[in-house]
Amino acid sequence: MAPIKVHGVPLSSATQRVLATLYEKELEFELVPVDMKAGEHKKEPFLSLNPFGQIPAFEDGDLKLFESRAITKYIAHQYADKGTDLACGDTKQKATIGVAIEVEAHQFNPAASKLTWELTWKPVYGMVTDKAVVEENEAKLAKVLDIYEGRLAHSKYLTCDCFTLADLHHLPTIQCLLGTEAKKLFDSRPHVSAWAANITARPAWCKVLALEKH
Amino acid sequence: MAPIKVHGVPLSSATQRVLATLYEKELEFELVPVDMKAGEHKKEPFLSLNPFGQIPAFEDGDLKLFESRAITKYIAHQYADKGTDLACGDTKQKATIGVAIEVEAHQFNPAASKLTWELTWKPVYGMVTDKAVVEENEAKLAKVLDIYEGRLAHSKYLTCDCFTLADLHHLPTIQCLLGTEAKKLFDSRPHVSAWAANITARPAWCKVLALEKH
Repeated sequence: MAPIKVHGVPLSSATQRVLATLYEKELEFELVPVDMKAGEHKKEPFLSLNPFGQIPAFEDGDLKLFESRAITKYIAHQYADKGTDLACGDTKQKATIGVAIEVEAHQFNPAASKLTWELTWKPVYGMVTDKAVVEENEAKLAKVLDIYEGRLAHSKYLTCDCFTLADLHHLPTIQCLLGTEAKKLFDSRPHVSAWAANITARPAWCKVLALEKH
Repeated sequence: MAPIKVHGVPLSSATQRVLATLYEKELEFELVPVDMKAGEHKKEPFLSLNPFGQIPAFEDGDLKLFESRAITKYIAHQYADKGTDLACGDTKQKATIGVAIEVEAHQFNPAASKLTWELTWKPVYGMVTDKAVVEENEAKLAKVLDIYEGRLAHSKYLTCDCFTLADLHHLPTIQCLLGTEAKKLFDSRPHVSAWAANITARPAWCKVLALEKH
């Protein structure tokens, strides 16, 4: 069977989500770089992998997938017996992980990704950070983290005492925010702060970060 | 075991997504109304069901869930042998359904829900529709529907010739948009138009719509 291929770039948060899952599962894969500056993701052959023209795209033999959170779920399910069990527990536990995965996508990420854009990427591109947008989204993220703080007082990770996909999906954005002024939102909440320190120190995640340096 | 309970209102698109799944699965349930005008969803006891204060919340015996797309996935999985098979196929087919579910959440819904707000709900609340927002989101939705048109030329539904959760998740917003000027975006694409007509005519969906009239 052909090896697993990830089409993307190590700096992209969606690509990182998939790479972290592959490293947790101890799977071999090939990272196929996509030249974003040349607009490769908006042209064929990339559009045959993802018609929406966004990275990452994923191949496992003849199976072609896109949307990072769909890819991670496939990997966790298809390779359940390899590496870290990212979907531990029975049907009810899996349903609770499913809720936390949706919370990341619909509550945490909208505010967090706006903050990474304003606080990290705009300065990189020489653009001016919009302070009103920062303030608005810091307030939104604070409300989400208040709820996380309550949860994490009862378990080491978001849904139980096991690290699951629900925690993993937060890694790219948290890593980015910890390097900005939004770090204060984590520092001021002891359980959230300990959780963020714990998950960003995972060996699989450190391997993802090491890719950026190549 | 206690019966399934859905805490929500029949006019809410997220509640409708869960109700449509329950009707497809031919499951008995109790719809527990939430008085949104009185702000019941922002107070206890509702916040114990969903700390984010959003409808619907869901109970199946002692299991409590929220986030509509997590609830529908639980129902489809837990009651796989009842009613319509909403996750048909092998692991690879399920992964492809997973991609289409993420596309609904991250590509279709952001534009479509902004349009339902501007074109349906703002007039209901006596607010003025922002034409620039409508134009921007009609353009975004058109691009998504162009990709759907290509897909639906090859299969009756979004991922195969079976109706799955990926199709079902679109129902509430499509039903709403077909009653607005955005209907033109569907009418001008024959495969999308036939698909929308097909899925909105499903008996399970008609039962959801009938609830609004009570």
